[in-house]
Amino acid sequence: MPRLRQTENSLLAKISRGFRSSDGGIDSRAETGTTRLLSLGIGDDAALFQPTRGCETILTCDWFLEGTHFLRDKHPPDAVGWKSLARAVSDIAAMGGTPRCFLLSLALPESATGSWLAKFLRGLRRAALRFDCVLAGGDTTKRNEILINITVVGEVQSGRALHRDGANAGDLLYVSGRLGEAEQGLRLLRKDRDIVNRSEAQLRKHLYPEPRLALGQWLVTKRLATAAMDLSDGLSSDLPRLCGASGVGARIDAQKLPSVNPLSSTRRPRHKTNTTRENEALALVLHGGDDYELLFTVPRNKTSGVPASFKGVPLTAIGEITATRKILLVAEGRKPTTLKPGGWDPFR
Amino acid sequence: MPRLRQTENSLLAKISRGFRSSDGGIDSRAETGTTRLLSLGIGDDAALFQPTRGCETILTCDWFLEGTHFLRDKHPPDAVGWKSLARAVSDIAAMGGTPRCFLLSLALPESATGSWLAKFLRGLRRAALRFDCVLAGGDTTKRNEILINITVVGEVQSGRALHRDGANAGDLLYVSGRLGEAEQGLRLLRKDRDIVNRSEAQLRKHLYPEPRLALGQWLVTKRLATAAMDLSDGLSSDLPRLCGASGVGARIDAQKLPSVNPLSSTRRPRHKTNTTRENEALALVLHGGDDYELLFTVPRNKTSGVPASFKGVPLTAIGEITATRKILLVAEGRKPTTLKPGGWDPFR
Repeated sequence: MPRLRQTENSLLAKISRGFRSSDGGIDSRAETGTTRLLSLGIGDDAALFQPTRGCETILTCDWFLEGTHFLRDKHPPDAVGWKSLARAVSDIAAMGGTPRCFLLSLALPESATGSWLAKFLRGLRRAALRFDCVLAGGDTTKRNEILINITVVGEVQSGRALHRDGANAGDLLYVSGRLGEAEQGLRLLRKDRDIVNRSEAQLRKHLYPEPRLALGQWLVTKRLATAAMDLSDGLSSDLPRLCGASGVGARIDAQKLPSVNPLSSTRRPRHKTNTTRENEALALVLHGGDDYELLFTVPRNKTSGVPASFKGVPLTAIGEITATRKILLVAEGRKPTTLKPGGWDPFR
Repeated sequence: MPRLRQTENSLLAKISRGFRSSDGGIDSRAETGTTRLLSLGIGDDAALFQPTRGCETILTCDWFLEGTHFLRDKHPPDAVGWKSLARAVSDIAAMGGTPRCFLLSLALPESATGSWLAKFLRGLRRAALRFDCVLAGGDTTKRNEILINITVVGEVQSGRALHRDGANAGDLLYVSGRLGEAEQGLRLLRKDRDIVNRSEAQLRKHLYPEPRLALGQWLVTKRLATAAMDLSDGLSSDLPRLCGASGVGARIDAQKLPSVNPLSSTRRPRHKTNTTRENEALALVLHGGDDYELLFTVPRNKTSGVPASFKGVPLTAIGEITATRKILLVAEGRKPTTLKPGGWDPFR
């Protein structure tokens, strides 16, 4: 029997259904969210969102493209669904906001409208429920490769959002979590065909990142941070953006950078020296992308308010903001070196 | 001398600059808009939008992809810029809303980051100024083909937005403008390599569509329409969506459909009979896409409030809504036929 071809209407219906699943808990929570925030969801020309009084609306969008951001034969479809939303929600976390709803733009080849789409929607819905972010609408079309673009709408109390441009000389520079972990996960994934079922923390972090929403909101509530952003392209690429926006520089202490746990599943090459290994570990922390941790600055007189960890996520002071606009890396027994952007940049 | 390669930062700077041009009028208007609505624009993790009290926020997004929605060797880059925004703004018009700001997601090959990008931004900025819609942020990446996704944020007085699902049996069905014109423009463009400088109305409508914002807002103010949507895929594909959402059918009068002016630049093939020509003209009106006209329904006791034209755009009653859920086409001296979707559908 020839395979029935999709029409755009039937694809939309499938996406809609994918978000009204049979498992009761999900159903009722999603419906409650929809009713509260959206007076009109999927199926009209546009979605209607009811803003909360006293709040500003946060708007952000992110590409997630086959071949550029994920590989169809390596990345499980449900991880593609999860991560495409998590990446965009991380920008809401960086502003200290609360996600409300999102738009899904999806371009698919005919071959991906069956099992791939079902699994993708499962991962996306899991993320939508975790982040309390309702699917409000979107656009679909046909394409040879899978193209995803997600717009997330969030809210934050007016005038309280975290910006990139508020860092001052003397502020301490903090980072959440461990850096380079997601990059390690990507290397694991590239190496091993059957690895997607394994539970290494690095792999989980690469496939199912957790935006630091609670941390961002806590920083807003406590009025601790002068500036903040999320780390998506790697510390060496993102820190210059925060410093550039604030008109300052920074001095990073290599010894203080939160170390990545060594990979349990890969053998260390015997021929490598300790120095080579140390340099590789440092490169991973400095340049590894996709961590979606928060980078933020706190004035010295408020640093006592920053705990060593927040809800299980370590918070580490890795250096300080300086008046000179250079970004320096300082390591024991070495001359300070200028830190050059070495993170992910599609145009480099 | 080797061509300098772009980095993502420099591409973002180029886009930002493209919206702060040297021509004073544009500059000041754009800046005013930015200050009023956006407390944070391009350059942070996300944009901040200040919602208007008493309004709901309208959210919509649209793909505009090379090879699917436009051809790089046929469509002038400034038309790609204009149309990518106009398509999404048309959804705001369909809700009776006012556009406020937009996010631009752009994926580009290295070869398009020079002159193509500059012209694209010029067209996009022209549209942004025309529709009073400010660039608030976006995302960029590198790709072999040009991929565009635009999210538009609009506003409408709470509870007053036009929906698709309010049509009732007996309502008259109206359409703005002439249908099939944009499809004619596309045919002209496909035929003639040098045609992009010509000023045919059909070509202009295909390249630089004008969303019916004033009409949508007027329908909201006058409380005339029970349902509305914009015509993007063609009457035969879009009307069933309005009827489906409203749980009704429709009866279209072929004689009343607003006729398309014949093409001035193409010769009529001599061998065609009058009937063939009439059928072709009818097919164009019924199935031609990309017109971005409004389709709306008005209760019979309010039709006296609908003028023959609104701000120069004809408004035509083309049929009526019926209780039976069929969509019928009625023509003089013929048996009514069921109208089947024949408009643009990427999955058909």
